[in-house]
Amino acid sequence: MARALALAQEAAAKAEVPVGAVLTAPDGSTLAEAHNLTRTLPDPTAHAEILAIRDAAARLGSERLIGCTLWVTLEPCPMCAAAIAEARIARLVYAAADPKGGGVEHGPRIFAHSRHAPEIISGIAEAEAAALLKAFFASRR
Amino acid sequence: MARALALAQEAAAKAEVPVGAVLTAPDGSTLAEAHNLTRTLPDPTAHAEILAIRDAAARLGSERLIGCTLWVTLEPCPMCAAAIAEARIARLVYAAADPKGGGVEHGPRIFAHSRHAPEIISGIAEAEAAALLKAFFASRR
Repeated sequence: MARALALAQEAAAKAEVPVGAVLTAPDGSTLAEAHNLTRTLPDPTAHAEILAIRDAAARLGSERLIGCTLWVTLEPCPMCAAAIAEARIARLVYAAADPKGGGVEHGPRIFAHSRHAPEIISGIAEAEAAALLKAFFASRR
Repeated sequence: MARALALAQEAAAKAEVPVGAVLTAPDGSTLAEAHNLTRTLPDPTAHAEILAIRDAAARLGSERLIGCTLWVTLEPCPMCAAAIAEARIARLVYAAADPKGGGVEHGPRIFAHSRHAPEIISGIAEAEAAALLKAFFASRR
């Protein structure tokens, strides 16, 4: 999660919403890492999670990331939560909750409806991730 | 929708789930078209809708596809429905409903929770789109 937080800081430096994600293989090695790039690309689907999933799938040569863990600094939105289910990711670890835009424990609660649901661990480094987001949005007002 | 159905047929010819999508600008001109490519790439996010949205955003140089219409042969899944909301697409027209995997009128009903919801028109060319999917899955059994 420390690496995901560093990626979120890189995003903020590019005026992108500071969210970072790391995908790890079953053996713990890093498969892919990314931060938001929606404005830079521009691509409305270029959230950190989607970019990491696409990169890892290309690297593994498989559309399914069996046994993999996704570490992300913010509760995934509905699009990303559904992509996590599509990719059959085994475990989702996220830092800060997102009551307004989240799709895991808020809003449509994607995994309550999907055929695949990962194990979910939340609240890891929550304060650091939330502080990054708060500072970013405060600086843009 | 005729073009989206032709794209779905192209997908089936590549052993991809036969779903096709076309994105049109406010003036009715085509901005992007795509079909599923999840196995070919491989990329679990490479649904027809996501590929069309990414292509159109790159072409327009904007992460928001204001005023645009997405035509797709199957009810979008939760991932694609949420991407449609992220992209601020104005109108969604789809052919066949998807009671098992759909995220618009089924499952998490994404637009009931999202800050942006498109106008929705469904059932256009429904029989043709459903027949394509049925034949595809029957041929793989």
